[in-house]
Amino acid sequence: MSDSTPKEGGEPVLRWLGERFRARDLDAANFDDPSFEYRRLFSEMWGTFLLVVVAAGAGVVGAQAYGGDLTLAMKALAPGMMVMGIIFFMGTVSGAHLNPAVTLAFAVRGNFPWMRVPGYLIAQFAGAVIACLFLQWTFGDVMAGSTLPAEGVSAGTAAGMEALLTLGLVSVILGTATGARNIGIAGAIAVGSYIGLVSVWGAPVSGASMNPMRSLGPALVGWDFTAYWAYVVGPLVGAMIAVVFERILRGDPTKGGATAAQGVLAPDDPSAL
Amino acid sequence: MSDSTPKEGGEPVLRWLGERFRARDLDAANFDDPSFEYRRLFSEMWGTFLLVVVAAGAGVVGAQAYGGDLTLAMKALAPGMMVMGIIFFMGTVSGAHLNPAVTLAFAVRGNFPWMRVPGYLIAQFAGAVIACLFLQWTFGDVMAGSTLPAEGVSAGTAAGMEALLTLGLVSVILGTATGARNIGIAGAIAVGSYIGLVSVWGAPVSGASMNPMRSLGPALVGWDFTAYWAYVVGPLVGAMIAVVFERILRGDPTKGGATAAQGVLAPDDPSAL
Amino acid sequence: MSDSTPKEGGEPVLRWLGERFRARDLDAANFDDPSFEYRRLFSEMWGTFLLVVVAAGAGVVGAQAYGGDLTLAMKALAPGMMVMGIIFFMGTVSGAHLNPAVTLAFAVRGNFPWMRVPGYLIAQFAGAVIACLFLQWTFGDVMAGSTLPAEGVSAGTAAGMEALLTLGLVSVILGTATGARNIGIAGAIAVGSYIGLVSVWGAPVSGASMNPMRSLGPALVGWDFTAYWAYVVGPLVGAMIAVVFERILRGDPTKGGATAAQGVLAPDDPSAL
Amino acid sequence: MSDSTPKEGGEPVLRWLGERFRARDLDAANFDDPSFEYRRLFSEMWGTFLLVVVAAGAGVVGAQAYGGDLTLAMKALAPGMMVMGIIFFMGTVSGAHLNPAVTLAFAVRGNFPWMRVPGYLIAQFAGAVIACLFLQWTFGDVMAGSTLPAEGVSAGTAAGMEALLTLGLVSVILGTATGARNIGIAGAIAVGSYIGLVSVWGAPVSGASMNPMRSLGPALVGWDFTAYWAYVVGPLVGAMIAVVFERILRGDPTKGGATAAQGVLAPDDPSAL
Repeated sequence: MSDSTPKEGGEPVLRWLGERFRARDLDAANFDDPSFEYRRLFSEMWGTFLLVVVAAGAGVVGAQAYGGDLTLAMKALAPGMMVMGIIFFMGTVSGAHLNPAVTLAFAVRGNFPWMRVPGYLIAQFAGAVIACLFLQWTFGDVMAGSTLPAEGVSAGTAAGMEALLTLGLVSVILGTATGARNIGIAGAIAVGSYIGLVSVWGAPVSGASMNPMRSLGPALVGWDFTAYWAYVVGPLVGAMIAVVFERILRGDPTKGGATAAQGVLAPDDPSAL
Repeated sequence: MSDSTPKEGGEPVLRWLGERFRARDLDAANFDDPSFEYRRLFSEMWGTFLLVVVAAGAGVVGAQAYGGDLTLAMKALAPGMMVMGIIFFMGTVSGAHLNPAVTLAFAVRGNFPWMRVPGYLIAQFAGAVIACLFLQWTFGDVMAGSTLPAEGVSAGTAAGMEALLTLGLVSVILGTATGARNIGIAGAIAVGSYIGLVSVWGAPVSGASMNPMRSLGPALVGWDFTAYWAYVVGPLVGAMIAVVFERILRGDPTKGGATAAQGVLAPDDPSAL
Repeated sequence: MSDSTPKEGGEPVLRWLGERFRARDLDAANFDDPSFEYRRLFSEMWGTFLLVVVAAGAGVVGAQAYGGDLTLAMKALAPGMMVMGIIFFMGTVSGAHLNPAVTLAFAVRGNFPWMRVPGYLIAQFAGAVIACLFLQWTFGDVMAGSTLPAEGVSAGTAAGMEALLTLGLVSVILGTATGARNIGIAGAIAVGSYIGLVSVWGAPVSGASMNPMRSLGPALVGWDFTAYWAYVVGPLVGAMIAVVFERILRGDPTKGGATAAQGVLAPDDPSAL
Repeated sequence: MSDSTPKEGGEPVLRWLGERFRARDLDAANFDDPSFEYRRLFSEMWGTFLLVVVAAGAGVVGAQAYGGDLTLAMKALAPGMMVMGIIFFMGTVSGAHLNPAVTLAFAVRGNFPWMRVPGYLIAQFAGAVIACLFLQWTFGDVMAGSTLPAEGVSAGTAAGMEALLTLGLVSVILGTATGARNIGIAGAIAVGSYIGLVSVWGAPVSGASMNPMRSLGPALVGWDFTAYWAYVVGPLVGAMIAVVFERILRGDPTKGGATAAQGVLAPDDPSAL
């Protein structure tokens, strides 16, 4: 970092903008560079670990004697704010999908190559399971962090609620992401707030998982798959409807404004500068 | 997206800025292009559906046995954060009005053509009614999501409270919108926070609807129009006063800085870049 | 707004940036133009009305039978989010001071001309009093919205708490404002969050007014000046200490980086572009 | 600030961008200029004072009779939002570390010179102790603001929880900071939200300190060091793991994209413009 005071005029400006432009391109190129795939997979695993350790952990801690002060609002807000933080700190590395429904939606929409999907799903699986093993080892009762239909709610209704919530979530993600990556302030705030607060009214019904891996973690570690199918079918159906809606709202991603949508420009996103 | 590293200098910068400039213009032109009106109407319908399913849904879920943990704050926060997300993900498509009071305020202010008003109102109506039918079908008690004056509060006082709350809301919208569209970070945070938290003190009085369609949904599906007039007259009066206030604060939209206000430049809005 | 697609190249970019540059200058010039003083005074009055009607109104509504669900957190958050919204929608008009302590801090710091201070104080006074008359007329018990030391807290301790809270508030404002104006995303979020959430721990002690006019409204309309001096002396002492701290942190505003601090450039504020 | 209307064309644009470029460079140069070290140390002391007076003060006020309405969520939110405000108003001065774990993480990562570490630690120590002396003098029971393992939680488990929470915190900080400084909207929102809400699920277990100085303040003033070691070892271990993770995610800071990471460009951070 130079401490010489630049002269007035266009040269330093253009140099600086050129550096910024180059960094942005480097960033986008890195996201496509196969030799950095280990970074992205580590990023997805670490991010999904953080998401699940907070989402399931809030339930687990809330079930302890000393966790009685944790309210429903806090349990719902914590994972939302965690996702916001994750998008901010590593969205440029792996795109911060953290969720098979998101990865598949990007792939179906044509923003993310199918050959990279399996790696992302495995990384998300690993992160979710490690998080739940950690919670089980520390607090002993990981099932308290599972997502289940409420008393008197059928698995079918829970699946419908999960589909609706995920439809909204993936709509927000597809509308704010840049080239299959959740990056920038708009994406972080929009996605984080959606998860944290909008799901609050759905949480009493179905737990507001919106994420097959987040629900799989406690189910697998606690070996209880009651109504688990609702947390696979619901989110995936919601995500696919969101892709259809996005096509209606913004058209075919391979024509017209598609270049803009695929990462060169994000009209809503100042951080894309 | 090119993976070649650009050379230092002005050319790539100007090319990149040119692309961004073109995308912004394309975006604004699309908003005025009649052949995309179906997109905007779908967007308003989908957005109003999401708003009403969350706003009324919080009341409906809160009335269930398993919804007892939903607090007043959560019921107020959820629609505000939903609107924030909607502005982020589809504000550039339809402007995310979601509310007849907002559409009419933009039209009276001279930012939105009157001939497009009926289509927007119909889309908002459809979204609100479908949301309430969905809630009725799923949970059975859509009237729990209606907006009513509190015990001991007259419909007239409720109308006054709705007028005051909507006056504030439309002031915020007119001051942060760009060319009849709620877009960008400033608009999303300001409008979402206003709906979610600022109006919280009015919610116990009148329900803090600020939106004739949001109140119409439960009233129509549940066929109970008690005090409904207060939720039409109040918001519309508040919106019209807000237009007058905006004229005092920023002058006539057809002279002076009007070009800036109508979408070319939003001085407060970094995402307008 | 032209719908022709601009050609690639520097010309449209420079034209667009030129427009943005001109709008920013116009904005700053308007803030200094005496012929627009009526707009700024209307803006301060309207803004202070909104702030006080929310801050005092939350207490007033909370004292009604139907307001029992309003929690301390909601009463503290509502005025903070209101201030955030006000900064977004009219910060560029009057600077959104809304508070004599802020206006005086800007004047002492050398950012705001002393001859404009009386007008701002009168506008703030008018807004606060009209808000409290409105609350008294609607709900009848405006004293429920007053700020008082808690049981067992002396007026002196309350004054100290108000001084400390205002010291923090004015530090945030001086560090994020641009040329005596609270504008942009950084200012709105920082100031709104500070008022809403940081004061939450101070609210039980002294009510977290931080604003002589906000406390004067209920005191004057309800004609009860118990401990009112604490809400004048505390905030003013805190604001003056904040000016001293700002001088330590950023130096003399008339030398060095002062041009940047006075509105040409706000290093932290992306919306200053 | 000139009130002449600039002509269309590139010159005023380039001049304006040049000014902004120069301010940014000046800002970065000031952060490295030894003759301004007193400003940075004052900034760290004042910032840590504010953080500890809010974090410990929420517990202290909550233990008073009039503080019974303070909920766990409010006690957790207040310090998070305080840190957000601090980053906004003085992040460009000292970087707003406020925490030995953060300062050491920046130093180990190679972003912050080791010879400046002792000064920062002393300033943080002074701020924390003065804050606790102030609380002790005003409210008398500073130990109510201390961080302790919950009933039935061993100091070792608390240390593990603190390590995990700090690992997340320092990951967020390293991923959003620019050249050892917490600046800009992304950093402020991400770090503030993380402290305030993400860690809420850990607060019932260990108090969610994540900061040896924040825990030292009450321990020293109240002279009770029960389990204090957990609040030193936990955060430092977590911070060091975060540095390793950052190296995996973004590579060696001295090669490749390191210039960008060290303050010239922050790809995610619009305020770096």
